[in-house]
Amino acid sequence: MTQRMAGKRILITRSEEYMGPACAALFRQEGGEVIADNSDLGSEAECLTVIEEAGHVDVLIVNLAAPNHYGVLATDLAEEDWLQTFELLVHPLHRLVKHALPPMIERRKGKIIVIGSATPLRPMGRLCAYSAARGAQISYVKSVGVEVARHNVQVNLIAQNWVENPAYYPPELMENEKFLKNLQEQVPLGRLAKPEEDAALALFLAGEESDFFVGQAIPFSGGWAS
Amino acid sequence: MTQRMAGKRILITRSEEYMGPACAALFRQEGGEVIADNSDLGSEAECLTVIEEAGHVDVLIVNLAAPNHYGVLATDLAEEDWLQTFELLVHPLHRLVKHALPPMIERRKGKIIVIGSATPLRPMGRLCAYSAARGAQISYVKSVGVEVARHNVQVNLIAQNWVENPAYYPPELMENEKFLKNLQEQVPLGRLAKPEEDAALALFLAGEESDFFVGQAIPFSGGWAS
Amino acid sequence: MTQRMAGKRILITRSEEYMGPACAALFRQEGGEVIADNSDLGSEAECLTVIEEAGHVDVLIVNLAAPNHYGVLATDLAEEDWLQTFELLVHPLHRLVKHALPPMIERRKGKIIVIGSATPLRPMGRLCAYSAARGAQISYVKSVGVEVARHNVQVNLIAQNWVENPAYYPPELMENEKFLKNLQEQVPLGRLAKPEEDAALALFLAGEESDFFVGQAIPFSGGWAS
Amino acid sequence: MTQRMAGKRILITRSEEYMGPACAALFRQEGGEVIADNSDLGSEAECLTVIEEAGHVDVLIVNLAAPNHYGVLATDLAEEDWLQTFELLVHPLHRLVKHALPPMIERRKGKIIVIGSATPLRPMGRLCAYSAARGAQISYVKSVGVEVARHNVQVNLIAQNWVENPAYYPPELMENEKFLKNLQEQVPLGRLAKPEEDAALALFLAGEESDFFVGQAIPFSGGWAS
Repeated sequence: MTQRMAGKRILITRSEEYMGPACAALFRQEGGEVIADNSDLGSEAECLTVIEEAGHVDVLIVNLAAPNHYGVLATDLAEEDWLQTFELLVHPLHRLVKHALPPMIERRKGKIIVIGSATPLRPMGRLCAYSAARGAQISYVKSVGVEVARHNVQVNLIAQNWVENPAYYPPELMENEKFLKNLQEQVPLGRLAKPEEDAALALFLAGEESDFFVGQAIPFSGGWAS
Repeated sequence: MTQRMAGKRILITRSEEYMGPACAALFRQEGGEVIADNSDLGSEAECLTVIEEAGHVDVLIVNLAAPNHYGVLATDLAEEDWLQTFELLVHPLHRLVKHALPPMIERRKGKIIVIGSATPLRPMGRLCAYSAARGAQISYVKSVGVEVARHNVQVNLIAQNWVENPAYYPPELMENEKFLKNLQEQVPLGRLAKPEEDAALALFLAGEESDFFVGQAIPFSGGWAS
Repeated sequence: MTQRMAGKRILITRSEEYMGPACAALFRQEGGEVIADNSDLGSEAECLTVIEEAGHVDVLIVNLAAPNHYGVLATDLAEEDWLQTFELLVHPLHRLVKHALPPMIERRKGKIIVIGSATPLRPMGRLCAYSAARGAQISYVKSVGVEVARHNVQVNLIAQNWVENPAYYPPELMENEKFLKNLQEQVPLGRLAKPEEDAALALFLAGEESDFFVGQAIPFSGGWAS
Repeated sequence: MTQRMAGKRILITRSEEYMGPACAALFRQEGGEVIADNSDLGSEAECLTVIEEAGHVDVLIVNLAAPNHYGVLATDLAEEDWLQTFELLVHPLHRLVKHALPPMIERRKGKIIVIGSATPLRPMGRLCAYSAARGAQISYVKSVGVEVARHNVQVNLIAQNWVENPAYYPPELMENEKFLKNLQEQVPLGRLAKPEEDAALALFLAGEESDFFVGQAIPFSGGWAS
């Protein structure tokens, strides 16, 4: 067994949702000390507390999730759902990054990995709030990524789609023939990724061998977007 | 003189800011009836009122502006400035589009043009909130653009940079030698665009000859981004 | 009638193929003097002759066409078909641009518009030679576009797909129900563009109002790619 | 020591040039059997021989190199240099992929990694042939990548720039102050990558943990392009 995270402390937010469990499992398996946080991240103060209580962090995995309201037309999407999407996916990103960066910059070493989405890379209708919020994440990562690279801190985003998770692909959907046919047509690889494969990309981005990745949104979608 | 907007009603928001004046002038010159609005757009109710009071609208130009806080590091950007950027640039976009679309969809005809930014297309540091918000606009337009195209309504965005305007390029900057040298190095064309050139692109997107443009973020930056 | 090309001389290559006829018709209708060339462009000497014989050229429309061999697997595509695709689509582009540029640079004025393809923007299988060649065109235009912009010469490319033309969409295909269903699913606008709409974009790019477009590959595909 | 390539046979072309030596070293260190080829690849027959003589290949690394003629204007680039660039960078790619794929498809397992360039992602002037050829590589990989994914064969490309190599960054350039200043300004990370870092990305793409990467051009440039 490799121990690629030996001696590293990894903070994972919303650790029971989205890619949280798979990332926690793999980073622990690789010898890392994982701080699995489940705070709401609903204010700057709360995010600051999460960062402060975590102490020394080598790798911050910003894992955020929200209902995607898929299927709701732009003309029907309620103001409160719109605002909530940004509250859950966008504002916590800045709050966490803002407070996690200073010690990384001071040490001239650190990795921030955002678990994002490929939906902004290949436009889908009936998904306007989620698309906009995930697009904000990508542009944020690109800007901050180039800003802090000179301090040897790398900020990148996994632009994923078609990765197994119970929120977006519940068991009943996975047995739906129409969905499976659509999956074959839409995803060149013809299957969903396992969360473990996604975590393997996060692990690659967390290691020093990928220091030259800076401010990137890396498509991870079986060929659906590129 | 051509009369490319004869018989058309064009609603321009925040019409005294950013590209508002140039668009209003050109669209009037081309024979259009321009409704120049200057509301704050700070709530869904206010946006709905703007749309309702405008009456029949053939072309909606979503022109929004905000301080870009250029030069402020991500570690220094205040929560209130972060949130305000989304309040000014992102949330009004959905509120306006949501309420402007239904009559366009019913008529099977309509154009929405968002005056956006090229900054998400070529990442810049020290610009995190603005980049994120402008990126949200782009992803929103792409999603809604493909959603409503089947109703023959076209939603597109002008992804501009290096266009003259007093907010981002005040007179004293335009005489600054270092800025002018930077302009030569950064912008292949070697100059800023006149707002009139930008308005000419908006005019092209407002006409029927560009119906095949759907959900696009069109770079307009003298070759800086592409 | 507007006369947007009055006093302009426009050279269109392979003028009986692809977008040649529609461009020739519109540019003439707008008052331009069109030189409609149908040379093979199979060597640098031949391309040089075309440019020299055309004399003063304000706008060069590089319109090239080739069999796309759609449906042929990469493992089956013959060497000769591969090479021919580059002979028809890629090498003439450089030969024409190389010799058309000097007088434009000297006059500090000129437009080159390449009629390209959107296929590199949204990958399709079973189209490897055509995709590669059209991708070479896009990268060439981006490089040369930023190179010559400082001389006030603009080089851009129309990255089109789903535009009516008898070579790629023959009449029998247009009546095929499966094709029409596919068209509805793939193209958000739900229809092909008329060649006249495509020519209108070329006209926009040929005029001074679009001088700020530099080295761009502009998607024109009804929302299929963006 | 990990043995991530244990039991694997890796064919590397032009193995003494560009990223050949670094890839060969790392893949051997990880337990792989490396076939280091140095053929000219100047015809389909020669490429076929290379593939046939290599026997069973799990991973094909298409490593091609050519003079980039950086600094030569489009108006000055000779026909023979133009054609040679495609002979060296583009045509061998198809010839190798065409003949390497069938056994991979039959086994439902295989990886092809193209060592490409980021230059098409961020346009540079005075580099037209190289940009066009590297752009052709990217579009080819995207098309073939989605085509063969259903056979569980993954084709991807490393879109690199600013990676140490004696051809593009000779020792005298590395000591040139102007170059070093330019490096600081252009590359957010502020340094060149070591070839070993590049090989680490190739290793990641060669392993099963990255099967969900399909038909992608992955920027690897220290934040220069994204």
